[in-house]
Amino acid sequence: MNKLFIIKIGGNVLDNAASLEVFLKDFAAIKEPKILIHGGGKIATNLGNQLGIESNYVNGRRITDGATLDLVTMVYGGLVNKQIVAKLQQLGCNALGVTGADGNMISATKRPVKEIDYGFVGDIRPEGVNNALLYFLLKQNTIPVFAPLTHADGKMLNTNADTIASVLAVSLSKHFDVRLIFCFEKKGVLLDVNRHESVIHHLPKSMYEELLPKNVFADGILPKLENAYAAIHAGVKEVLIGEASDLAKNTGRETEGTLITL
Amino acid sequence: MNKLFIIKIGGNVLDNAASLEVFLKDFAAIKEPKILIHGGGKIATNLGNQLGIESNYVNGRRITDGATLDLVTMVYGGLVNKQIVAKLQQLGCNALGVTGADGNMISATKRPVKEIDYGFVGDIRPEGVNNALLYFLLKQNTIPVFAPLTHADGKMLNTNADTIASVLAVSLSKHFDVRLIFCFEKKGVLLDVNRHESVIHHLPKSMYEELLPKNVFADGILPKLENAYAAIHAGVKEVLIGEASDLAKNTGRETEGTLITL
Repeated sequence: MNKLFIIKIGGNVLDNAASLEVFLKDFAAIKEPKILIHGGGKIATNLGNQLGIESNYVNGRRITDGATLDLVTMVYGGLVNKQIVAKLQQLGCNALGVTGADGNMISATKRPVKEIDYGFVGDIRPEGVNNALLYFLLKQNTIPVFAPLTHADGKMLNTNADTIASVLAVSLSKHFDVRLIFCFEKKGVLLDVNRHESVIHHLPKSMYEELLPKNVFADGILPKLENAYAAIHAGVKEVLIGEASDLAKNTGRETEGTLITL
Repeated sequence: MNKLFIIKIGGNVLDNAASLEVFLKDFAAIKEPKILIHGGGKIATNLGNQLGIESNYVNGRRITDGATLDLVTMVYGGLVNKQIVAKLQQLGCNALGVTGADGNMISATKRPVKEIDYGFVGDIRPEGVNNALLYFLLKQNTIPVFAPLTHADGKMLNTNADTIASVLAVSLSKHFDVRLIFCFEKKGVLLDVNRHESVIHHLPKSMYEELLPKNVFADGILPKLENAYAAIHAGVKEVLIGEASDLAKNTGRETEGTLITL
């Protein structure tokens, strides 16, 4: 099977024009088929403040009310997505910006109200991905760039960008050898949280299971690792956790970040 | 050749939720291949007012400065476009929201600065349309929905929605018998501006040339007619000018609006 890179960048890269420029150059230079998923960044929060849209949190989790949904639809689906697309076009990468609603790329269900009503938030599964359209676009060297939004019942829905990346990776593993890359603020998974040079460059499941009881992993990294192995078990060939500035190396054989495999 | 409907709706429909709903139902029900182009509406102006972004006009023409560009990218490319897409998806129409930047659907050039600097405004030509991608999408029954934005040199550009509709129609006339429909606030071209029932249902060029010296056409309709005949001369089979609420009839044989042909 052909290789496919599915790459997620978060807010910290989007909020810094110089970092974003370098990242997009590296992304455009990848020769293999690729998909980009971007998060939100501070722009939505700043614009929300200007417009008097309050960020509502319940038990530390953000609630997407109607005004917030309009805000993220504008900022993620409009401003951030199109600025990335225009820049990638300039760099010779034929980017096509989408949300899960466009071409029904990812159908979702509105999160059911239980203890908390999260509002307009979409839950998604690999079965909801429109593989046929994505496969065609990739074959034509047209590169999907996803904003973290999906849809159901005629409404846009706010959806976690990490989850979109994972769900796309699992679904497209039927057609490609997928390397799913999460760009975060560290070089990779560290053996010693205080030493940046202690990156574990390859973390197969057996090693992870050996290290887990020794409490070497920092709290913040554990959910990422659990999600990574969940993706691997669902068919994704490789998951890589690394820094956005290392993208060029992390799409090659000798990775700077942490490559997670079965 | 197969028929293709290219339909432009303006702000007056977008600003009224009930009218928009009816319009989108009629659009979704069209069985032939189709493309929608939407304008902006009052949302951008209202949001601009809230954010303190001033509308700048020189000689009656709007100037797109950096803040205005961000505003229209958010509102046209994000909010309005995705709300239409989500609604069409609910209606069973596999809509894919795009700007000219996405998949390089329409490449543009930034309008050169002469007497007036229009700012971030894109000029486009039929040669800049990515027919191959549009043709494929239509063949897969994936329906492009265009926001009035294009791109050049890594930047988004504000672009007139009527112009996008015309340019798409001319370019796609190589592959389809195109009926280009402009939805406006009247039933059609009137023989007597004071009588709504005086719609000219069919206006071939010979009749237009005959009526022109008799000053029957209202001032506002003349540029529309000139653009319509320009499109016809460039290969578009039919141009129709009519009311959004008449879309169902205006995509059939017996049109309510004014059908313009050679």
